[in-house]
Amino acid sequence: MDQALEQAREAMRLGEVPVGAVIVRDGEVIATAHNSPRADYDPTAHAEIVVLRRAAKALGTSQLIDCDLWVTLEPCAMCTGAIAHARIRRLYYGASDPKGGAVEHGPRLFSQPTVHHRPEVYAGIAEEESAELLRTFFAEKR
Amino acid sequence: MDQALEQAREAMRLGEVPVGAVIVRDGEVIATAHNSPRADYDPTAHAEIVVLRRAAKALGTSQLIDCDLWVTLEPCAMCTGAIAHARIRRLYYGASDPKGGAVEHGPRLFSQPTVHHRPEVYAGIAEEESAELLRTFFAEKR
Repeated sequence: MDQALEQAREAMRLGEVPVGAVIVRDGEVIATAHNSPRADYDPTAHAEIVVLRRAAKALGTSQLIDCDLWVTLEPCAMCTGAIAHARIRRLYYGASDPKGGAVEHGPRLFSQPTVHHRPEVYAGIAEEESAELLRTFFAEKR
Repeated sequence: MDQALEQAREAMRLGEVPVGAVIVRDGEVIATAHNSPRADYDPTAHAEIVVLRRAAKALGTSQLIDCDLWVTLEPCAMCTGAIAHARIRRLYYGASDPKGGAVEHGPRLFSQPTVHHRPEVYAGIAEEESAELLRTFFAEKR
């Protein structure tokens, strides 16, 4: 999660909402990414989407079986759906997101009967550091 | 929707699940795309995600306000979330998807209280042609 936090700090330096993500397989980092919708002119460029795309390209597959995703914020509906499509094995995340999260909040997508794949989910990893970055970012925006 | 169906047929020719999408603004086609997760090694490469990314790049923005999305199949959770992030004005879709859809089925994301944006939704446009392509594709796979 340290590398995911480093990515989130990099997003903050670039003026993007500070969320970072890392994909790991067998103890090896396959890809890292941060939020970048503004810089990339891409409404889908959340950290999770970007890191899933990078890892899939790196491994030459569209299914990331045996891969684990670490991300500093609870994924939204778009990213939760992408995590299911990618067949991620374990999801570790930091801060909870009552307004936009879709894992433990809102539609709770992994609890829906129609979801195609459910990773193991571990919440609250480095929660305080992850949340503090977001609080600082939005406080500066105001 | 004719152009979205042509994109879906192109996906079928390439061995991808036949779904196509088009983004229109003021009567002008901004971008077209089809499903391509296998060819692109990209679990997020549903037609909707690809067309949202292309349109945003083409317009130099991360929010597609005043844009309408036409797609041959009811969007999944990932794509429905992306449509909300992109602030699409109107969503027109073809076939319903009781197993994977997230607009009128499953989590019904635009009906969730936490959704950030709800487009106007028009379902059942060229439904039969859209569904027939999918039936043919999956029948050939068996």
